[in-house]
This record gives sequence, structure tokens and C-alpha cells, in this order.
Amino acid sequence: MTDETSSFSARLKANAAAVEALLATLLGPAALPDEIARPETLLDAMRHGVLNGGKRLRPFLVTESAALLGGNADAGLRIGAALECVHCYSLVHDDLPAMDDDDVRRGKPTVHIAFDEATAILAGDSLLTFAFDIIAAPETALSDSQKTTLVLALARAAGHGGMAGGQALDLAAERRAPDEAGIVLLQAMKTGALIRFACEAGAIIADAGPEDRRRMRAFGEKIGLAFQLADDLLDLTADAAVIGKATGKDATRGKGTLVALHGQAWAERALERLVREAEELLAPYGARSAILAEAARFIANRRS
Amino acid sequence: MTDETSSFSARLKANAAAVEALLATLLGPAALPDEIARPETLLDAMRHGVLNGGKRLRPFLVTESAALLGGNADAGLRIGAALECVHCYSLVHDDLPAMDDDDVRRGKPTVHIAFDEATAILAGDSLLTFAFDIIAAPETALSDSQKTTLVLALARAAGHGGMAGGQALDLAAERRAPDEAGIVLLQAMKTGALIRFACEAGAIIADAGPEDRRRMRAFGEKIGLAFQLADDLLDLTADAAVIGKATGKDATRGKGTLVALHGQAWAERALERLVREAEELLAPYGARSAILAEAARFIANRRS
Repeated sequence: MTDETSSFSARLKANAAAVEALLATLLGPAALPDEIARPETLLDAMRHGVLNGGKRLRPFLVTESAALLGGNADAGLRIGAALECVHCYSLVHDDLPAMDDDDVRRGKPTVHIAFDEATAILAGDSLLTFAFDIIAAPETALSDSQKTTLVLALARAAGHGGMAGGQALDLAAERRAPDEAGIVLLQAMKTGALIRFACEAGAIIADAGPEDRRRMRAFGEKIGLAFQLADDLLDLTADAAVIGKATGKDATRGKGTLVALHGQAWAERALERLVREAEELLAPYGARSAILAEAARFIANRRS
Repeated sequence: MTDETSSFSARLKANAAAVEALLATLLGPAALPDEIARPETLLDAMRHGVLNGGKRLRPFLVTESAALLGGNADAGLRIGAALECVHCYSLVHDDLPAMDDDDVRRGKPTVHIAFDEATAILAGDSLLTFAFDIIAAPETALSDSQKTTLVLALARAAGHGGMAGGQALDLAAERRAPDEAGIVLLQAMKTGALIRFACEAGAIIADAGPEDRRRMRAFGEKIGLAFQLADDLLDLTADAAVIGKATGKDATRGKGTLVALHGQAWAERALERLVREAEELLAPYGARSAILAEAARFIANRRS
């Protein structure tokens, strides 16, 4: 392990711990005012869905993009936590019997198994709603203009023109396989939109100009594509025990992936090219952007 | 029919038509930029869920509360449409097999019947997300401060401390009946929170002071309670054909309602008192508030 890798990995872990702690507080005993009847089971289910020991890659991208451009660190952490609520809501709903029907995630029972389907639906709904609560809350040290920009960008990244739309296209792909262009668009929406938002959010938090915002958005697009390709490679090769969820499922369901279409060697070359393009986008920022470049390589090479 | 009723009913209908038209446009052919792969089925399902010919009572309350305090009419319409997206998402998810398992709403197949469960889950998620998109969008002629205030208030009204929390408490009530205080709290969250938001939103849109905002919020609380009591009375007496959905279901499931606890005569007296209290809150506004007073009476006396 090089020093660079070790420092990257330490920063990723430290950020994940900070996100986990913030979410635990926000959904903890002081989460609701006293005059409310606390929906304890729902709060348990929300915590089960979001305090799951994930790598918190999206919040890390928010934090580091914001740091690169001089944004407030605490605001970066809170926006990262909001984004993680959206990511985790999508996992809770994706795992439902009517969707992917997964019983296990990261070695733990999924929310509808640990609780029940109705509670899992409501927990997902509540996590999604809570993301916008966190952004708009007075505790988030950003201007109203920044908050409005973030709400709009997150809603578009998560909604019918983004992640949820990509999910719906993915359902349609089970019935009729899309062509290559269709696969690329579907994945850009389903997986790419939130990752792109993560990087763009950093620029918004830093109140950066349009050129920085465009650049971080483009960087997010490249690593979003890399993330999906790496995921498809993982799905092809990984072992269920290693990544803690059922694998090969996408393949057996006949969903088209670029890896299935072009093979492993092609995908590995494409990943190299995406990382290089991502690094080129960071070039103007010099050495300060080393950690984001490392994030790009981590995303492309991850094996879990 | 008195002139007052006829004018009220005409305004309610005109507002509902305006909300329907706006939502049809927002979810229509120009809903997404060209570079997106349009998730047509999802958009169809969203439209099925939200363009349902409802009375649009919540948007009407937004519009009329905003009008009373001098708010921008177009902004009021847009915030009303956003609120209706949240209300309709909750109906789409409530109707799911894992929740209330309803096949019919307003005489039409519910979203998971007309499409499938996965699509209904995603359509609900997307309508909820879209509400925040509408509020934050540049087309909404409000300041960033007003938008941030609205996002926060709506997220709290809809989330685990509001509507979704009330839904979760309602699920728990099927296993263990709450006492009277528990029923009141549950209903204030499940049904009351969005109605209270509707009235408070009017004050926010008008950039009204804290006293007006507090007053509209209190008015919303009173009519929210009235709404639920009227609903419980309807559930007791109405005929399935009249209201177009299964009735008596709440009773057969053993969910406690105040009507079940205290009887119909008590509920009718309580409704009268709530309407009187709501009218008293409007008194400082004089004749200009006649339409909102009429809305309170309409909510208490509605038979569908």
C-alpha cells in the first residue's frame, strides 16, 4: 500500500465516520420535538436503512469537491448526509419484493425483512423527504440561494429525469433490452446522476463560478460512468460472500450492460480512459486535487 | 344553493382546473430536456397518480391563504401543485398491496393496478421528489428565502415527523389501538400536517409577518382536525359507490377513530366547534376571509 492510498483510505474512513455520526444524531433521540408522537418503528427502520456502514462515497465526493474549491466543511458534511439519505432510500425501495427482491444487503437483512414491507416503503419515503429537510434546515450554514440551488439540483438528480427515471428504464429493459446508447443513458440517470450531483454540490457549497461548477459536474459524469462500469465488472466476477449481496442477478435477468456487450478487456480499457479524462478535468487545480484524482482511481479499481 | 356556496364551489372548481392544467404541463411532453431518455411509463404512471380529477382542496387552501395576505397568485398555484404532488404520492403508496391494498380510487384503477407495483413505488417516489423541484425551480416567482422556508416546512409536514410518521403510527395502531390522545396526535400528523402546511404556505408566499403566519397555521390545524373528523363520519356512513373507494375498511381493521370512540352526535358537535374556532381565527381579516371561512364549512360538511 502506497502512502497516497493509505492517506486516501484514512480520509474516506474518517469522512464515513463523520457522516454516520451526523445521521445518527439527526435521526436520534433529539430528532423530533416533544409534542410529536414519535414513530419509533419508522425511525428504527430509517436508521436501519441509512446507518449501514457503507463507504459513503457520495458524501466523500461532496466533502472533497467542496474542500477543493474552499467551501464550508460543516455544510459539506450536511449536504453529503442529505445525499446519502437519497442514496439509501433508493436502496431500501430497490430491495423491495416488487423491485429487486433482495433479503440481504451488506450482510444484514434488508429493511423490509428486518421490519415489514409497509415500513420499508415509509422508511424510504421518509429518508427521501429528510434529505430536503437537512438541506433547508437553519443548521446548514449556506445562503438561501445556495440551498435553493442544491434542492433543485438534488431533486433533478433523484427524480423522474434522474435516478428514479433510470430505475424505471431499467425495469423496461427487463422486458426489452436497450441498445448501447440506451444502456449509456439509462446508467447515466440511474447511477450517474447522484454521483454527478455529489461533485457539482461541492462547487455550489463553495459558491464557485460557472466554470468550476461545469468542471466539477463533468468530473462527476466521468467517475459516474466509471462507477457503473466497475460495478458491472464486479457483478461479472465477484463472489457473493465478498460484496455481501446476491451477484450475477443483473446478468441472469438479461439486463444489458456494456461489459456484457463488449467484454471485460474492453471495459478495463474504458475505465482507464475515464480515469484519465477525470484527472485531466482536475489538472487546473494542481496538487490540491490529488485526493479527488485518487477517488477516481478508487472508484475504477474498487473490488467491493 | 346560496350565492355564497355557488361562488365558493365555482372558485374551488376553477382552481382545481388550473392545478390540473399546470401539472399536466409540468409532466407533459416538455417535462424533460431532449438529452434525457424519457421514462415514458414512469411519466404515464405519475400522471395517472396525480391527474386524477381530485377536488384539489390543499392547493385551494394555498391559493386562498396566499390571496388573503397579498401573495403572488402564480406562485400560490405552483406551491399548491407541489403540495398536490406530495398528497398524491402518499395516495399512490398507501394504495399498494403492502399498505391498504386498494385496487380502485375515484372509480379508476390505482397506479399499481393500472401499471405494476414497482412502477407505482417509483411513481410515488418521483412525485414526492418533483414537489421539491417545483418549489425550487426558477419559474416559481418567490425569493430564495421563501423557497427555503417552504422546502423546510413541506419536508417537515410530509416526513417522519409529519404525514409519513402518522402513517407509520397508523400501521402500529392496527396491532395496538392508541388511546384518545394517541389518535389525536396520529391524525394531526397523518392528515393534519399537509393541511396545516397548505395554510401556512399561503402566509410564506405572501411574505407575511410571524403573527399572520401563526394565525394561518392555527387555522390550518383547526380545519385539519375537521377534515379528519368529517372523513371518519364519511367512513361510517358513506356508500362505496358515492366516494369511489372501499369504505368501512378502517373500522373493520379495528383502527380507532374519535367517531368510533364518542359517536356520531359528539363528532358533529366537535365539527361545529372546530369551524367556529377556525372562523374566529379569520375574524381580524374581515370580509376578505369569507372564502376561507366557507372552505372550513365545506371541509366539515363535505359528503364525498
